[in-house]
Amino acid sequence: MKFASYRVGNEARLAVVDGDHLIDLNKVIPEVPSDVRQALLAGVDLLAAGRRAIEVAGPFARQPLAGVALAPVVPEPGKTVCLGLNYYDHAAESGREKPVYPWFFLRSTTSLLAHGEASPRPRVSETFDYEAELAVVIGKRARHVKREDALDYVFGYACFNDISVRDYQKRTPQWTIGKNFDRTGALGPVLVSADELPAGGAGLRIQSRLNGQVMQDANTRDMIWDVAETIALLTECVTLEPGDVIAMGTPAGVGQSRTPPVWMKHGDTIEIEIEGVGLLVNTVEDEQP
Amino acid sequence: MKFASYRVGNEARLAVVDGDHLIDLNKVIPEVPSDVRQALLAGVDLLAAGRRAIEVAGPFARQPLAGVALAPVVPEPGKTVCLGLNYYDHAAESGREKPVYPWFFLRSTTSLLAHGEASPRPRVSETFDYEAELAVVIGKRARHVKREDALDYVFGYACFNDISVRDYQKRTPQWTIGKNFDRTGALGPVLVSADELPAGGAGLRIQSRLNGQVMQDANTRDMIWDVAETIALLTECVTLEPGDVIAMGTPAGVGQSRTPPVWMKHGDTIEIEIEGVGLLVNTVEDEQP
Repeated sequence: MKFASYRVGNEARLAVVDGDHLIDLNKVIPEVPSDVRQALLAGVDLLAAGRRAIEVAGPFARQPLAGVALAPVVPEPGKTVCLGLNYYDHAAESGREKPVYPWFFLRSTTSLLAHGEASPRPRVSETFDYEAELAVVIGKRARHVKREDALDYVFGYACFNDISVRDYQKRTPQWTIGKNFDRTGALGPVLVSADELPAGGAGLRIQSRLNGQVMQDANTRDMIWDVAETIALLTECVTLEPGDVIAMGTPAGVGQSRTPPVWMKHGDTIEIEIEGVGLLVNTVEDEQP
Repeated sequence: MKFASYRVGNEARLAVVDGDHLIDLNKVIPEVPSDVRQALLAGVDLLAAGRRAIEVAGPFARQPLAGVALAPVVPEPGKTVCLGLNYYDHAAESGREKPVYPWFFLRSTTSLLAHGEASPRPRVSETFDYEAELAVVIGKRARHVKREDALDYVFGYACFNDISVRDYQKRTPQWTIGKNFDRTGALGPVLVSADELPAGGAGLRIQSRLNGQVMQDANTRDMIWDVAETIALLTECVTLEPGDVIAMGTPAGVGQSRTPPVWMKHGDTIEIEIEGVGLLVNTVEDEQP
């Protein structure tokens, strides 16, 4: 089943996708919170709610997906944990050894972006780069979870574009600031429940395309730490909460590793596509002065 | 004026401090949101609301500060940005050159802790260290702010203990995981409005004491990047929102730099005191198996 968050004024609302239409869950089933994180925190069975909404919603409760402004699939995650260097070929192209532990960093909510929106290329930098990633959305509170149980805590998956401002990322050993510019972490277009995909989202083709040209083309089975192992490692340290997001790192082919480097610029279109998960499309616009 | 967040069941509520009593702002002035971040996002004039609450609250609206369970002064910041190596003496004791740009990283909400609570020493690590820091709470949305205007965006200050799990912090060049263990970032006890302190919280004595012994003893004027410069640098990159927190880094004297190293253990009491800002006290307890 597929879910989306869409914007109504300043609010983001949770919908289930039925073909090429959206059904606002809260409007059909008022006890379902209108925010996906709040719904997961409240322990709502979203698969059951989605099935019921598809069954009972009349034509007036459905709206064309093409006509709405989407929000990031989780508009306000409690936290968004990202992995660096989680594909060996990308570690190698970045001049790094195979890492012995994931390079975790965090993204803030102000850095998130929705499918279809323009990402502002910062006025302070020209080194604006894409990164195709698989995102995991946590469904249940998780702490000290064993690898063999870890996938029980996953609600679903989405595409992620971990757009990076490379010069800021490398100003110090801490990458965080270069990964947190406003509206650079695209999360969408939809949230696909885990039951629709192979276990751990493994074995899926993952691509990025810049203005139609394939830049990254890999498979999620090539992650160094897979989704289950990542959840086990993270929950040694932190509590993962419903609605938290994990961005699983990117394969080879990013712009900075090309000769000459390729930087995204005003007017570009960047697409992230993951087999069975979706096609995430964003444009690039120079930040307004 | 001083504000606190205190716990009522699972909820944290905003109060103004009047001497040794708390007054719940929302109970006296119902239009003030009960969460400080929401109040700041809504543009509430908290100084005016606090003055009015102190004026009109009867004896039944006041409760002894000593009798409540506090929450972190901002219970759920939109983001908590931390600076590493922002005092030259601490950079030096860590074997680092004077940095040329702040080492920014983020903390998630699950890593925050209130005054008076026990911080769980993780079962996976014994390298559990304190860091005395000045925390800044943002009052107004800020983007591309000049240094000379930056302090207009500060609502107030609090003490912060950036408790660090050193072996995890150093597993990779990204410090984030070692700074995000559950309930390791103490923020409190109270939030002091900026008008009560010197501009930028500068010139204040800052100490940590472990079981009564002074471990760090410095002055906030010795930061490499002061509060105004930090806000200017951050807002080149990100939007700071009301209720966001900035932890300004720690001076020399942390446990890892001592010979032999000093690690916090079960039963310890760690205090952070900043002149005019407050005394933040936490204990350490082994994480429950």
